[in-house]
Amino acid sequence: MAEEREDGAAMGGPTTMSVAEIAAFAADILETAGTAPANAQVMARSIAAAERDGIASHGLIYLPIYVEHVRCGKVDGRAVPGLVQPRPGVVVADAACGFAHPAIAAGAPLLIAAAHSQGVAVLAVRNSYNSGVLGHHTEAMAADGVVALGFTNAPATIAPLGGRTPVVGTNPFSLAVPDGAGGVALLIDQSASVIARSEVVKRHREGQAIPEGWVVDAEGQPTTDPEQILKGGTMAPSGGYKGVGIGILTEVMAAALTGATLGIDASPFSGPDGGPPRTGQMFLAIDPAATSGGAFARRIADLAAAITAQPGARLPGARRLEARARHDREGIAVSSDLLANIRASIP
Amino acid sequence: MAEEREDGAAMGGPTTMSVAEIAAFAADILETAGTAPANAQVMARSIAAAERDGIASHGLIYLPIYVEHVRCGKVDGRAVPGLVQPRPGVVVADAACGFAHPAIAAGAPLLIAAAHSQGVAVLAVRNSYNSGVLGHHTEAMAADGVVALGFTNAPATIAPLGGRTPVVGTNPFSLAVPDGAGGVALLIDQSASVIARSEVVKRHREGQAIPEGWVVDAEGQPTTDPEQILKGGTMAPSGGYKGVGIGILTEVMAAALTGATLGIDASPFSGPDGGPPRTGQMFLAIDPAATSGGAFARRIADLAAAITAQPGARLPGARRLEARARHDREGIAVSSDLLANIRASIP
Repeated sequence: MAEEREDGAAMGGPTTMSVAEIAAFAADILETAGTAPANAQVMARSIAAAERDGIASHGLIYLPIYVEHVRCGKVDGRAVPGLVQPRPGVVVADAACGFAHPAIAAGAPLLIAAAHSQGVAVLAVRNSYNSGVLGHHTEAMAADGVVALGFTNAPATIAPLGGRTPVVGTNPFSLAVPDGAGGVALLIDQSASVIARSEVVKRHREGQAIPEGWVVDAEGQPTTDPEQILKGGTMAPSGGYKGVGIGILTEVMAAALTGATLGIDASPFSGPDGGPPRTGQMFLAIDPAATSGGAFARRIADLAAAITAQPGARLPGARRLEARARHDREGIAVSSDLLANIRASIP
Repeated sequence: MAEEREDGAAMGGPTTMSVAEIAAFAADILETAGTAPANAQVMARSIAAAERDGIASHGLIYLPIYVEHVRCGKVDGRAVPGLVQPRPGVVVADAACGFAHPAIAAGAPLLIAAAHSQGVAVLAVRNSYNSGVLGHHTEAMAADGVVALGFTNAPATIAPLGGRTPVVGTNPFSLAVPDGAGGVALLIDQSASVIARSEVVKRHREGQAIPEGWVVDAEGQPTTDPEQILKGGTMAPSGGYKGVGIGILTEVMAAALTGATLGIDASPFSGPDGGPPRTGQMFLAIDPAATSGGAFARRIADLAAAITAQPGARLPGARRLEARARHDREGIAVSSDLLANIRASIP
């Protein structure tokens, strides 16, 4: 009993952890589940980075899903990504049915080098998996001085205008713009749907209702029940047909152009069934020094100033950076119940 | 009087014209206004192509604006675009304050060649102007076998979330996907706003009201009066902050990365004031053979089939192709009043 009183985890209260502590915890869990140490390190850093940026849906709450998928073979935790460069501006990474993150991390240095020498380059990733927070990948690329535009596809959940059957996933894209000092001037990371599917799944897990306008049920009616997305419902596209257009753009970039599996053919990102989803990612990197005649930094500063000069308006990505600074200062409050549940998810 | 009865133009009735007849008419008008013959040919073809595809807002109705801008010097009708290729994957076109179309047309063959040899290439256009129907440029590139992604910026008309002052234009992007037979499998061409600004201006010209949700007036209230866009109002972004995100993406690609003028600093695309807008365009071309491991054509066919299999759903771009086929068969009905007004716009 004394032990329970001392142990916040057993009592269910919040625990304050540092980014490094979260990463170490996640790496240990992933390795125990059967992930190769190098891959576990990459994935653990991504989970910690999501918690650091206040993106709970891709933080520790996702860890049991990664564990389940490594254990059931939906992800090969021991995969070693294969890299080829078939043209001067093209890097192709085969994730070999492992996590996306190690394949992206392996290909990024070649992508950056090619972007600087060629002016523009792409990294095409296939036989991959959910890439977590897309903006973390583009942000890392922008730190090396390129404008990075990323796309990742997902199992189909959005129906076309006039139809009922999903044809594209919520399919986010992300743009990271370098600030010339190793950081980002602005970061866009937005899905094709009104809201990311992971937010609906999170509400379902927590037993909460969702606002009307996020999900359309199987009969084409708006619903506030998050479970409908698991029962034949579809994600509402942002801005109607224009959201479908963004989803198709991303499907073309991340799946058709990479040779990955289309969202209509991919196994789900949740649950143990269907084998590896073999989805894909595409990253474009452009060297501003090659295209802008020296005007880039000034233009970005002027654009950013036009936004921040307005009270109430914020740069895309500002919320993440604020959460990051706060968490680095104060640590991150983590539910002890969640930590206990994660520990319980492995033998 | 007899002459008036015989002359449809003078009577105001509709006249049926072929695409070639519209192009010849437009070329004659543009040359008379002071456009160099080569530039006039390119612009005339673009006007005829807009009419052919049923995009009236960029068809003959736009011709008096082009004429006004050539005559007042907002566009240099005799400009010769300058081309350089500073890196293997980068083509930079300086439109020299002329029309965008000749600069894009001049750079496109270098872009396509670079995309095939490097796997990916970009065409950055600066000191440019309104590019008309963006999708016509990407479609022409896709006919040469590349996936073409285009961006064009415009004077700022969209405010950021939480602000009142415009920071980006309605800024369309366009994706053209080759069908492998000289045509496009699908074509996306959509603006960052709920509706293109040209549609609001067209309704204003025609004295019609606009639906609520297109424009926000200077006090931040929804309005059905198209004139509010000329009186400090802003264009509503599609899907709220996500539309602003698309606008910023396009501003970064088409202006910051090309060294063109930002939308916040550009002179208006309408009226004689402010000198050349010096806006820009960016086109990315990717060779699917370099990135997809041979899977591209099959993926695109499968994605397209998933959409067309649903009654009521259509591929992006289908409406244009239908109008094109109908107009090639039946000719294009043109208002004789419009033709007369255009003729009257030049001395």
